[in-house]
Amino acid sequence: MTEESLQAFIQKYKDIIDKRLPELIDSLETPPNLKESMIYSLNAGGKRIRPLLMLAVLKAYDSLFDDAYDIACAAEMVHTYSLIHDDLPAMDDDDVRRGKPTNHKVFGEAIAILAGDALFTRSIEIMASETNSLSPEVKIRLISEFVKASGPEGMVGGQAADLNGEGKSLSLEELEYIHHHKTGDLLTYSIVAGAIMANAPEQDIEKLRSFAKALGLVFQIKDDILDVEGDASLIGKPVGSDDDKDKSTYPSLLTLEGAKKKLAYHAQEAKETLSKVSGNMALLNELTDYIVERDH
Amino acid sequence: MTEESLQAFIQKYKDIIDKRLPELIDSLETPPNLKESMIYSLNAGGKRIRPLLMLAVLKAYDSLFDDAYDIACAAEMVHTYSLIHDDLPAMDDDDVRRGKPTNHKVFGEAIAILAGDALFTRSIEIMASETNSLSPEVKIRLISEFVKASGPEGMVGGQAADLNGEGKSLSLEELEYIHHHKTGDLLTYSIVAGAIMANAPEQDIEKLRSFAKALGLVFQIKDDILDVEGDASLIGKPVGSDDDKDKSTYPSLLTLEGAKKKLAYHAQEAKETLSKVSGNMALLNELTDYIVERDH
Repeated sequence: MTEESLQAFIQKYKDIIDKRLPELIDSLETPPNLKESMIYSLNAGGKRIRPLLMLAVLKAYDSLFDDAYDIACAAEMVHTYSLIHDDLPAMDDDDVRRGKPTNHKVFGEAIAILAGDALFTRSIEIMASETNSLSPEVKIRLISEFVKASGPEGMVGGQAADLNGEGKSLSLEELEYIHHHKTGDLLTYSIVAGAIMANAPEQDIEKLRSFAKALGLVFQIKDDILDVEGDASLIGKPVGSDDDKDKSTYPSLLTLEGAKKKLAYHAQEAKETLSKVSGNMALLNELTDYIVERDH
Repeated sequence: MTEESLQAFIQKYKDIIDKRLPELIDSLETPPNLKESMIYSLNAGGKRIRPLLMLAVLKAYDSLFDDAYDIACAAEMVHTYSLIHDDLPAMDDDDVRRGKPTNHKVFGEAIAILAGDALFTRSIEIMASETNSLSPEVKIRLISEFVKASGPEGMVGGQAADLNGEGKSLSLEELEYIHHHKTGDLLTYSIVAGAIMANAPEQDIEKLRSFAKALGLVFQIKDDILDVEGDASLIGKPVGSDDDKDKSTYPSLLTLEGAKKKLAYHAQEAKETLSKVSGNMALLNELTDYIVERDH
């Protein structure tokens, strides 16, 4: 896999996801400002990492099919819903996300809360009702993994732990609990869902789950490093904003150099785990490098 | 069906639901304040109308089984999540619900938002992962109905329309759009879900859906009437609070007498539709009367 082909993969499938996401909302019969609010945040950019990981796994098994795009969009919708709720005044109180006003700054807090709620219900509706090429067994397995990753033992639990930890000095263990759940579980879901839809061997699914956990840490450590030394115009928020909020981060616990070492360690761990999976994992290997080396 | 047996039904199954709801949360590994917040609102009382309707339909077909209690609890969880979010300062800004401080007054706004989010994800998890006596086909059908009723074309859409209508004078059509979706769709789901789990004939399911739509209007018109002439100590909120918020209601659009006539009309419509359903609908008939005659 050359870098050109990775970039071609990202561009091709990011375009498909970017185009499909608003279509999946636009067809709804719902109050116009609620619909606009949902579409606004889906269209506000983003790397589409979760859909791309899911599609990359499907390609690794040569098993990409049409309904998989909508399952990939559902994962992006839940990510978007979590960002809308995280940005609320009662939560992180962010006015800007990816260089644009946050949802509640445009549509008001009440509609922003409901837009998040609606994106979540819509994501499940797509999985349950609008992907007819999947068997009920596969749908139920996907939905089970999805809600476990998104709920009180997953993303929402991680967000609560993150809020509880604000202004406190966390241990590395507490910080990793937060990241495993707040961002890691949905990344892991995306990879595992690709493998389930590809009908991958069960031992591959479990190895990909381990790979995904390491990749999730890589992703978060890199985010924390970018918050210290990134370019504000690329990352879409002010550099040093974690520090301003008195949040524990990998650099604050381990120093910037220590965080970079840990990033390299988990990147290596991820790639070694990946090497033990059957199927053609070259693209996922490249995606791992891309996540390590990204500048936003 | 005598009134005694209706009361016995309500008491018996309300107790089962009241006991089961916190158990379904207590087993979770999640931050303690998030868990407490979820349980607080589940334990804050409520008539458990949605679970009771679902179980009454199952009994009408002599088909009640253990996992149905958890499916009934999932419907109550989504109702509870909607109340937590509706009560937030950005939404209805209510300090008291059922005579107790609202969730965000006890746990703070951020945890209240997440408790709502977590109750919804948990409800789907129960349906997808923890009801093994149901086939994947039945689970997917239930989940499809459930998220349609809860999402942007259902409950969340109704709530957005309700917010958009505040301070405006609504037409009866606009008011009914709000109620059909904000409260009606989840009541309808509860009844339809009971029929699906009972493996009722498809024509019964569609008749029960029509019955449920009429019952949903009955329920909401009665709520509006109680807000005008109810006893604050029984309904758990100040009498006249809709009027204070400048909300359109059935009495404000139709006069109190007109609202009572409309209540009687839809109650009759509901009961006539019910009379055309196979199975023993005596209990549901009595429940309809109970909803019309309730004082809270």
